[in-house]
Amino acid sequence: TNPVYTGLPTTIFEVMSRLAIEHKSINLGQGFPDVDGPEDVRRFAADALMAGPNQYPPMMGVPELRQAVAEANRRFYGLDVDWKSEVLVTSGATEALSDIITAVIEPGDEVVLIEPLYDCYLPLVRRAGGIPRLVRITPPEWRLDLAALEAAFSPRTKAILINNPMNPAAKVFTREELEAIAALCVRFDAYAICDEVYEHILFDGRAHIPLMTLPGMRERAIRIGSAGKTFSLTGWKVGYVTAAPALLDPIAKAHQFTTFTTPPNLQKAVAFGLGKDDAYYGELGSSLAAKRDRLAEGLARLGFGVVPCGGTYFVTADVTPLGLSGDDAELCRRMTVEAGVTAVPVSAFYAGEAPRNFVRFCFSKRDEILDGAVERLGNWL
Amino acid sequence: TNPVYTGLPTTIFEVMSRLAIEHKSINLGQGFPDVDGPEDVRRFAADALMAGPNQYPPMMGVPELRQAVAEANRRFYGLDVDWKSEVLVTSGATEALSDIITAVIEPGDEVVLIEPLYDCYLPLVRRAGGIPRLVRITPPEWRLDLAALEAAFSPRTKAILINNPMNPAAKVFTREELEAIAALCVRFDAYAICDEVYEHILFDGRAHIPLMTLPGMRERAIRIGSAGKTFSLTGWKVGYVTAAPALLDPIAKAHQFTTFTTPPNLQKAVAFGLGKDDAYYGELGSSLAAKRDRLAEGLARLGFGVVPCGGTYFVTADVTPLGLSGDDAELCRRMTVEAGVTAVPVSAFYAGEAPRNFVRFCFSKRDEILDGAVERLGNWL
Ligand SMILES: CSCCC(=O)C(=O)O
Ligand SMILES: CSCCC(=O)C(=O)O
Repeated sequence: TNPVYTGLPTTIFEVMSRLAIEHKSINLGQGFPDVDGPEDVRRFAADALMAGPNQYPPMMGVPELRQAVAEANRRFYGLDVDWKSEVLVTSGATEALSDIITAVIEPGDEVVLIEPLYDCYLPLVRRAGGIPRLVRITPPEWRLDLAALEAAFSPRTKAILINNPMNPAAKVFTREELEAIAALCVRFDAYAICDEVYEHILFDGRAHIPLMTLPGMRERAIRIGSAGKTFSLTGWKVGYVTAAPALLDPIAKAHQFTTFTTPPNLQKAVAFGLGKDDAYYGELGSSLAAKRDRLAEGLARLGFGVVPCGGTYFVTADVTPLGLSGDDAELCRRMTVEAGVTAVPVSAFYAGEAPRNFVRFCFSKRDEILDGAVERLGNWL
Repeated sequence: TNPVYTGLPTTIFEVMSRLAIEHKSINLGQGFPDVDGPEDVRRFAADALMAGPNQYPPMMGVPELRQAVAEANRRFYGLDVDWKSEVLVTSGATEALSDIITAVIEPGDEVVLIEPLYDCYLPLVRRAGGIPRLVRITPPEWRLDLAALEAAFSPRTKAILINNPMNPAAKVFTREELEAIAALCVRFDAYAICDEVYEHILFDGRAHIPLMTLPGMRERAIRIGSAGKTFSLTGWKVGYVTAAPALLDPIAKAHQFTTFTTPPNLQKAVAFGLGKDDAYYGELGSSLAAKRDRLAEGLARLGFGVVPCGGTYFVTADVTPLGLSGDDAELCRRMTVEAGVTAVPVSAFYAGEAPRNFVRFCFSKRDEILDGAVERLGNWL
């Protein structure tokens, strides 16, 4: 069987969620909210199930959703997008990444990736025969070293894959950093695969800047959004890709032979949801910011070295002040079994040698769950 | 961009469906029912949307559905399947095929395929670097030439991909043919990727025989089923894979990095649906058999050379008796525009030189639609 997949470990999120269930632990590992998103969006989907049709929708997605994605690009970022040639609906952002990497990367192409990175990036690049060129950002600042970034580009660079806001680092790239990335893409004639699933989850007044809005990037950037993160419905697996027509075309071909389509009732409900008013989007960010503060303060009180968090569902913490550094994976296992709190080891987001003193906590949970986790950790420590 | 996808045509089903919409034609092209499946199954899914959680289910699928798939394997085929290690849920049979071919085929591996074939098979094999070895069955008998099949196998054969019942030929493989295939798999140490999405849509007293039930195949066969076809809900995109643990493991890894999961409410509803009584499954087959007869008789009356159909949603017809042979693709375009009836050219299911005198009609439609199509075709002819 294919060596890219044989011997590959099960994803860390699944491993830790299974362990959490087994030990009845408070699961702050895998990134999902414990309260489902808007009732009216779910109601819309339920009504569409009963009204039908529940048959194959168009391969690119239902027109309502493609139009809504184009409109959201305009409303939030001033991007002028043609829904008929520039928007594709996928069965989640993971499928979007799979389609894009399959379509864009040829064997021998180099792909620039930023470590720590989400765990599907490397296997997908390798499956396509791509050669990863890794650049590291380091805590607690998670600053991007622009010289190192430049050194990772070469005439063989086909694309950079960037996650902004970034999981697990909770980093929001600055305009300066994005401009540097854009300039390198232009200079080396590279694409940018932009995983922007947390585009509406930024804190402290930060505004999301799609790389696609920067000079020279309109035709180079492939932008991924996700209903799962935008509507707190991670199980729906509805994602969307925005890209210039010539780029979107081969991506749609990969999609055609990967899932072909996505359930029409969920697509229609997401189209409805994207039209929600500014209050909805504002509340999404502010409620998660309050949760971040609640967990971060609790962890800091216990002595964790909490790393600043500008967006996403996650806060990372240095365990060195607690004398627990050395093996973050074993620490997360022990915390699950002994403390009843599950986190994810940050070393799982690295390809090679990794720092072993950081753990990632997901704070998109009810307040009493976050408080319970802090209390359990306090008792354990 | 990747040459496997650049320049690839949009799937024939999508092309013909778009043309049908444009010309307000009766669409007997793409294979989907025009009446949605069971209301109680849809209600189950709608209730689960409202009750939640709508968050990431386990990567392999919700336990209820994996158990129901194992139970269906036992109930219908006497197969003893361990749901925890031998069942994977996917976002439709297309994703299952993508995962399986990605996981099983390595560059340079040969894959035996039977023409005419479903249109995603070849691109998926090529994407994995596999080398297709094509064997043809020819109408009107669609008999499998066992000597030709044997000649297609070699020590480099990694797998055969077989669709049974077979789209577009509407062929149901005989036990003798399946035994010959199984013997070749054993002799050449090959896997069998078994696309059995029409497993409950066989006619005239035929019983489905999973290749997995044949001697030597329990550990070699990878069996794909689909809720879309079994519950007349093609838009749901819920598929399931049954395979021995050592085979399922790399397939699950491919799935993990393709869609990761499938909406939990749909999975739970499919689990409920799979428990339906024998009357449900009997009625599914008998109602479709009646539709096949209705359309086949109508087409025969008009002079089409209707080819025998043992299962699936499709009947193929030779247009030679009508003097319309020569270019089936152009004929299907003309039929859509001039007659207002859309079919699919059978040549689209061939890799190379193809017969140009067959068209495929989908009969999983309301009786008045089928009658209307025959009437329109009659007027046009
Ligand atoms: C697809 S499971 C992983 C969920 C997630 O985004 C995370 O935990 O990082
Ligand atoms: C995925 S669209 C094709 C549907 C189908 O099974 C067919 O028409 O053959």
